[in-house]
Amino acid sequence: MISVEEARGRILATLTPVAGETVSLADGFRRVLAMPVIARLTQPPADLSAMDGYALRAADAAKGAALKIIGAAPAGHPFAGSVNPGEAVRIFTGSVMPQGADSVLIQEDATAACGAITVNETCILGKHIRPAGQDFATGDVLIPAGRRLTSRDIGLAAAGNHPWLNVHRRPRIAILATGDEISLPGEAIGAGGIVSSNAHALAALITASGGDALILPIAGDERAAIAAGADAAKGADLLLTTGGASVGDHDLVQAGLASRGLKLDFWKIAMRPGKPLMFGHLGALPMLGLPGNPVSAFVCALLFLRPAIERLSGLPGVAPQPDFARLGAAMKTNDQRADHVRATLTRDDNGWIATPFPMQDSGMLRTLARADALILRAPHAPALDFGQKVPFIRLEP
Amino acid sequence: MISVEEARGRILATLTPVAGETVSLADGFRRVLAMPVIARLTQPPADLSAMDGYALRAADAAKGAALKIIGAAPAGHPFAGSVNPGEAVRIFTGSVMPQGADSVLIQEDATAACGAITVNETCILGKHIRPAGQDFATGDVLIPAGRRLTSRDIGLAAAGNHPWLNVHRRPRIAILATGDEISLPGEAIGAGGIVSSNAHALAALITASGGDALILPIAGDERAAIAAGADAAKGADLLLTTGGASVGDHDLVQAGLASRGLKLDFWKIAMRPGKPLMFGHLGALPMLGLPGNPVSAFVCALLFLRPAIERLSGLPGVAPQPDFARLGAAMKTNDQRADHVRATLTRDDNGWIATPFPMQDSGMLRTLARADALILRAPHAPALDFGQKVPFIRLEP
Repeated sequence: MISVEEARGRILATLTPVAGETVSLADGFRRVLAMPVIARLTQPPADLSAMDGYALRAADAAKGAALKIIGAAPAGHPFAGSVNPGEAVRIFTGSVMPQGADSVLIQEDATAACGAITVNETCILGKHIRPAGQDFATGDVLIPAGRRLTSRDIGLAAAGNHPWLNVHRRPRIAILATGDEISLPGEAIGAGGIVSSNAHALAALITASGGDALILPIAGDERAAIAAGADAAKGADLLLTTGGASVGDHDLVQAGLASRGLKLDFWKIAMRPGKPLMFGHLGALPMLGLPGNPVSAFVCALLFLRPAIERLSGLPGVAPQPDFARLGAAMKTNDQRADHVRATLTRDDNGWIATPFPMQDSGMLRTLARADALILRAPHAPALDFGQKVPFIRLEP
Repeated sequence: MISVEEARGRILATLTPVAGETVSLADGFRRVLAMPVIARLTQPPADLSAMDGYALRAADAAKGAALKIIGAAPAGHPFAGSVNPGEAVRIFTGSVMPQGADSVLIQEDATAACGAITVNETCILGKHIRPAGQDFATGDVLIPAGRRLTSRDIGLAAAGNHPWLNVHRRPRIAILATGDEISLPGEAIGAGGIVSSNAHALAALITASGGDALILPIAGDERAAIAAGADAAKGADLLLTTGGASVGDHDLVQAGLASRGLKLDFWKIAMRPGKPLMFGHLGALPMLGLPGNPVSAFVCALLFLRPAIERLSGLPGVAPQPDFARLGAAMKTNDQRADHVRATLTRDDNGWIATPFPMQDSGMLRTLARADALILRAPHAPALDFGQKVPFIRLEP
């Protein structure tokens, strides 16, 4: 058995980012940029007024002065003339500053009447002007490659005049659920059978992680069915299996994939839940074999699949970053396996409180769904009392 | 001017959840459940083995005992007979426990040869069995209405045998960007003009908040154009405008919408950035008017639009929940307006450190895109030194 960290490192080391594609600006949201976004213009394009008021020469605008209004410059309609001594131009937020003016007197500080204004507060030189290029200039790198685009990045790319973006395509993750005992929701269930839940929860996690999920038909417990599933994954960037990763006679995933040339990299990790995780390759196709238990499968997906999708997407791909909480209940000494304990999170003025569920059976999906976090327990971690500090990761990142 | 809290409260008070729709299980991810998900079966359906091994009677299985293997029960293929004294059935994780057996001896603790096993470790009564209904029973409420569905909830609904879900439809948010100075990315830009960024950033934020964004054509600074935009928003659940919400002569949104019967609820909030926010109704259609500055528009969307979309979606809709950080730089006394200061976040062993950007001009979209958080400064908040505690909210929730 290898450690969680070693397993993740070995998986990530084999993966490289998928190629890029051109998408519309809107479709770039949450995608990972493959080519940097370079500013195609300067923003602001000229000195702009930051307020509604009057563009004028500060030297003319001491308190009490009167200035002639020679025109107006609505946003998008620059004033064509020039502001000379004793003159002012009506101006609005976002308007281009007229030639000759060096300051803006806000309208609250002026009284306008009969084509002239009276200055009620002495104007400060250069005040209320957004200088050309204050935000960015043509040629600036607005967003570097390798960043997952936020809503603000989409706005910034728009402001830089980009209707299209070059992003990594979404990694395609084929999911092959195996087992004679499972059927699809709403379909007939055999004696002692259960409904397949893993593929559906994993597909959602894949979507949330930036991947495209391909749910393959369920493969029964026969080598040929599993081999056919692997064939159906052609064109995927990763094959994910669930079930059949243990050591029983009916755990056929390794046997089924062997017929398609599976090269196993590792199998079994010193962790709980999820010990029988496996990783290998079918030719160039990476293959991650998750346990069949829904809790084990989800925890393994969080720890290994999510970073793998990130790496395929053009991000570094890292372990879920732990936060810290105080324990809401005591915990026993841990054994030699890294444990991931389902817990609820609450908070008070001193921060997070993580309370483990008393039952941690890996078949209990309802407990997983109700949990907020996994408390991380290193191998051989000592017993902890109520209130002691523990690291945790969130279940829905 | 009213406070941020009062403004949010008045917006939320007018909104009610949109109707439900039926979607496939996969499409339910991140949607808000309109009808509870009730378990349609019991899980596990029967007592199941939690391990690979042998189903037997614990009374027969002291260390050194020999038992006859009378059959096998692969998962999905229950053993039809009964286990009598001196007998065992080969069993696998997820297999139904055969009649007569009360315990599972894990395979690591047995030696199998010639159709019999020798017990190497005394078997504990009831060990390694998942009792029927341990996870849930038919009729249990698996997921209550009003919850935004996680990937684990999707798995749980699948396990409860639901191929379809009843969720609130995505609230439709129509976005009307206004201004003679703005044009679409990649299109011709007029003298002193800029590229429209607000609609695109807001559409992404709407998507992330669970809404469907409808970007209307840009309306120029004419009453008729703005009125036509309002007409095009027919069927939306909320009309969002950007720009034209200030007090200048060219701030025409109120005037344009007045021709369509705008009832203004409030206008101007004691906050920075974003003072000229307005809210009202066009008949039954709620209307939120955001400022034109990209930073102001985004901050207002985070504080008011996002909770509004949540309320429309069937969630309560609450203020962004603040976390706490130590300041990475000193801050001055605040004035009478609630301030929202763009900052970067880093962390050390003692938690988060928020460092405000030195320039906070509301035209600087690049600073917004590079920021991680907004430091919250209450009206009249006192000056703070480096290292003092401040509340913050994240920009990309």
